[in-house]
This record gives sequence, structure tokens and C-alpha cells, in this order.
Amino acid sequence: MNASIPLPIVEPLDNALRAELQHIIDTKTKPPGSLGQLEALARQIGLIQQTTHPRVERPVMIVFAGDHGIAHEGVSPYPQAVTAQMVANFLAGGAAINVFSRLAGLTLEVVNAGVATPLPDAPGLVNIPVAHGTRSFAQEPAMTLDEARTALAAGAARVRHHAALGTNVIGFGEMGIANTSSAACVMSRLCGAPIDECVGRGTGLDNAGLAKKRNVLASALAYHRASSDPVDVLATFGGFEIAMMVGAYLAAAEAKMTILVDGFIATAALVIADSLEPAVREYCVFAHASNEAGHRRMLDHFGAKPLLALDMRLGEGTGAALALPVVRAAVAFLNEMASFESAGVANRDER
Amino acid sequence: MNASIPLPIVEPLDNALRAELQHIIDTKTKPPGSLGQLEALARQIGLIQQTTHPRVERPVMIVFAGDHGIAHEGVSPYPQAVTAQMVANFLAGGAAINVFSRLAGLTLEVVNAGVATPLPDAPGLVNIPVAHGTRSFAQEPAMTLDEARTALAAGAARVRHHAALGTNVIGFGEMGIANTSSAACVMSRLCGAPIDECVGRGTGLDNAGLAKKRNVLASALAYHRASSDPVDVLATFGGFEIAMMVGAYLAAAEAKMTILVDGFIATAALVIADSLEPAVREYCVFAHASNEAGHRRMLDHFGAKPLLALDMRLGEGTGAALALPVVRAAVAFLNEMASFESAGVANRDER
Repeated sequence: MNASIPLPIVEPLDNALRAELQHIIDTKTKPPGSLGQLEALARQIGLIQQTTHPRVERPVMIVFAGDHGIAHEGVSPYPQAVTAQMVANFLAGGAAINVFSRLAGLTLEVVNAGVATPLPDAPGLVNIPVAHGTRSFAQEPAMTLDEARTALAAGAARVRHHAALGTNVIGFGEMGIANTSSAACVMSRLCGAPIDECVGRGTGLDNAGLAKKRNVLASALAYHRASSDPVDVLATFGGFEIAMMVGAYLAAAEAKMTILVDGFIATAALVIADSLEPAVREYCVFAHASNEAGHRRMLDHFGAKPLLALDMRLGEGTGAALALPVVRAAVAFLNEMASFESAGVANRDER
Repeated sequence: MNASIPLPIVEPLDNALRAELQHIIDTKTKPPGSLGQLEALARQIGLIQQTTHPRVERPVMIVFAGDHGIAHEGVSPYPQAVTAQMVANFLAGGAAINVFSRLAGLTLEVVNAGVATPLPDAPGLVNIPVAHGTRSFAQEPAMTLDEARTALAAGAARVRHHAALGTNVIGFGEMGIANTSSAACVMSRLCGAPIDECVGRGTGLDNAGLAKKRNVLASALAYHRASSDPVDVLATFGGFEIAMMVGAYLAAAEAKMTILVDGFIATAALVIADSLEPAVREYCVFAHASNEAGHRRMLDHFGAKPLLALDMRLGEGTGAALALPVVRAAVAFLNEMASFESAGVANRDER
């Protein structure tokens, strides 16, 4: 953060209500444990909101967009111009995240975190680029430490804006050609995983493209020996959209929101946030398992079993948006189901 | 079916639109294949409805309730009275399936297919019991062939009622103490699986209870050598709620509805329906993987990868209800996403 802007502080969950929540869950008219992951989810959201009657209020999806200098090394099958074109698609309502946000009742916000071409101000666009894309980390750090801190603060500020409006459930998505390369290097450095386990096909590289991407990233990791300080790693390999997501995670946990964690890039950003404030993961709901190679290993890093596994690998926050109905279902059963006693249903072994 | 009531006839899907649907899916603004199972789902629903613009219209969940004579052999930890008590809970709106149906926008219908105690007529109850519970298949066939045919016809009639009202997506749930025992025997006989692979803990048997259930069911299967004719198997081991579900599946496929397949018991009923009319599976969306032992094997029988795997094992149609938002998402992306061309986004390898 800039010297004047304090890093959000994330408190561990207060577990005082845990036993009461579990009792309520266990006396609902169903066999104990039979709602599976929904039961753990209801308990977690109750603890986050510190109530036995949690609510989903004004859920928000923020999509951060940024460009990456590493795109010029030929690590993606799509041209860099697609980042700005997809931002226009978001603003016109035609992308997958628009469709899924509308369906799930998510308020969608699009943030220009650092797209390569200047974007005109437009209704629905939060136009706050840190710079016009990062530098190529094949040659030099992607951004300065000051740029990284500026992006962290900007991401946090977007979340605080929504917190003030009453949002208590939030998800983060991203758009940025070549950002799986950025995320793979972050993951490798902070999770201590060999780069080959972190690199995948992204938007759809063929075998030759995948081999080239591996070589480019292995060289870059060797070149930047540096520290494993999370902000250093972010500045070296990150993107402006990833940096804003990091700040957004921290501010969301500070504000005691339930956080929907999307796929590969969103989880890499969470690895950074978690390195800064380890309690952040207690506020996280891992929405889906991406088909991008490496995501499963990052989920293992968090000991997470995601809610959905639909073989998706699109990004934009699409997995997080699709998981919101499951979150709503967890909250609804906790609030609305009858208990054995209230419904006059015999419990097990009452004969 | 009764001699006067024809068995529904299920036509295989007409694949004429397949290539056109695939082209539309592939030119949406996303990497090809990146929406994973949603893409196959969108294509399937397009083929079922024979349109490139499918819709979810008046989705319905029917919960069939019935009692089982086998309950008196001590195969469930819950008393048989719970079936009727849970029907009352459904009618009062307090069960999990009420909560999830409300949330998903499903019209919920509760059918008394054959509960042991006579139920008073009540608003919201379709009160059409074939008999007051089945006989214990430890000693004799659970029902007569005529009772089985009556139940098949009644289940089909419920679906035709909703088809006439415009429903094109439907799910089936069930309630019946001891019906995992019934479903396990159906599965064993029709899938050719050893009974030990079909028997699970149901609503939560301990190890001793599980061993007893295995013994009771193994003896019953040995006692009823009989045929593998699906209606014979249904009459021998089935329940009235299972029989009505079989008729409901057939009528739903006949009416070209998209069918949401719930967990262990619902899938066992589908095994019977599929034995009668093999094309029925082409109309099925496998909603979730139940934690009840044996469900995974039945899913393999259909070559199915279910949409959700939330470690649930509650029945009532709860897994099917939770999958409806995923179905809505598949339909919505097909209808609402922009194409590369319409959005002015460069496709891959355009540099």
C-alpha cells in the first residue's frame, strides 16, 4: 500500500457461534450431514456474519482487466487487443460473466486496472488504470513496487465502496490476455511448485505453444531469483488486475464479506493475499475447480474442495457467479427449513 | 400400464441441429470448450427442444411419497411414520425440497403414491395412493403387476398434466422410509451388480445396521430369483413412489422435456425406465453425485458425469433442484452471449 494507505487487517473468524450453528443444522428435518458441503457452507457464512440467520445482501461481482507485457513473448493464442475488446463486450453485456451475473442477481462492475490501450470513459466502467499494461517480466519486473501498492489500494477501495452500500457477498473475476502466465509464475514462487506443474494451456494453446510458454516462464523465474516477499512477487510477475484482486480480497475479508473464489488466476491472487494476511482464507468459498492445469494444486494449497467442477476454464469470474446459487441454497436451508421438533417429525431411532 | 393405457413412447433425439448448435457455441466470445459441461448441456437442451433458442418454461419438481413393507425388517434407523410426517412437512413448506424449489423457481407438487397411513386431502397434495404401502419383499413381491402398472400410469399422468400447462423442464424426487433398500435391489437385478455394491447407509445406518440391511437384501434377492423383466423387477422390489417415477420419466421424455435426475433412488427408477425405453436417457441431465454408496456405479451405467458433487444424500429431489440454476446458465449463455463477430472481438490467432 502507499505509505498513507493502511493494509486491510483481516481478523480470524470468531468461533463462538459454531456449536449453536451446528445444532441448528443437525436438528433440521433431514438425516445429519445429508446436505454435505452445504452444511459446512451454512456454518461458515454464519460465522463470517456472526449470526444464526445469515443473509446474502447485494452480491457483487467485480471484473478487473489488465494487460501483460509477457503477451509479447507469444504465450497466448489470442492477440493482446482482445483484452480491450472484451472490456467493451463486458460493457455491452455480451460476455459470459454478464449472462451469469444477470441470472444469479449479481451486480457487475468492470474495472480497467491497466489495459494496454487507453479506454474512453463509459457508463459502467471504473476507469482507473495504474498504467497501460505491465512490462514484460521476461526482461524486467512487470511493475514497480509503487505501482503494485497503488493497485492494491485501488482494489481495496472498490470493495470498500460496495461494503458501504451493504454488500456482504462478493466475487472477483479478471480479463487479461496472457494472465495465466503471470499467475503461473506467482503460484510457482509462492507455493514452491515447479513451473511445469503451474503452466497450462490457458485459452487453448496447442502442444508447441504450451512448450514455448513453459520455456519462457522457466527462464523468467530463473532470471528473477529475488525474494519470496508477496508484494515483490506480485510486482515482479503480476498484473494490475491481479494486484487489484489482491487488495480486493483483503478488503473483503476485512469487511467480513463472504468471498467467492473463481478459477486459476483468481486463486493465484488469493495466494498472494493469503501470504499477506493468512486469515483471509476463512472468508473464502472456493467456487469451482478450473480445468486449467495447476488449479487443483492451488486448491490443495488451501485444503479446499470447491463447490462446482464443471470442466470450465473461462475466467471472468464465471465459476464464482455459477456458485452463488449454491451459497444462496446454504443460507436458505439454514433460515427456512423446519426442525424435527417444529415440524413434528420423529427423529432417528424413535420407534 | 393397464391394458387400456399405452406405455409412453420415447423417440431418440433428432440430431439434425447438432452442427448448427455446436457452431453457435463455438463462436461465442470465449475460448472454444471453455464453458465445459455447460456447452454439452446447452447442445443437449437445444436438441431436446429442437431449437437453437431453447427456454426453461414452468419448471416443475414432483415429489412422490410411498411406504415400504421392507421397513419392518429394520433396514432404516427412522420409523416408518416419518414418511407421512415428512409429507406433512412438504405440505407445510418446511423441508429441504421446499426451500430449494422456492429458490430455484420450481413449482413443487407432492404426490401420495402409497403412504402407509391414509392421508387427509390437503391443499397441494395429489392424493392418489395405489395402496397403503407395499408388502415386504423379504416375504413376497412388494406389489402385484397390476399395482405396478397402475402406478406407472399414474406417474405418467402427473407429467402429462404439467406438459399441458407448458412445463418443459422437470425433476422427480421421493420420500419413503426404507426406499434405498428397494432401490438397491432394483439396481442389483437390472444392472447386474453384486448387492454389496448397491447397499449403502441410507439415512445413516451404523455398521451393524448396514450389515443387517445387506443380509436382508441378499436373502430377498436370492428368494426372488424371477425374471429380469423391468416391470417384474419393479413389482417385486419396488415402491409405489418408485413406480410412479418410472412412469413419470417415460412421459417426460415422450413430451420432450429436459429431465433433472436426482440421486440414488431417482436413478434406480431411471434404470427401470431406461430398460423399458432406452432413449429416455437422452432427455436426462444427471444433476448430482449422491454420497449414497452405489450411486456412482449407477452413474457409470449411464456413462454420466453429473453436474454437482456436493456430498449430499438427502433425496426428495434436492440434488435435482440445486442443478436447475446450472441448466438455466447453459440455456442463457446460448441465447444471450455475443459472438466474436457481433461483439467485434478478435478470435484466436488473429494478429
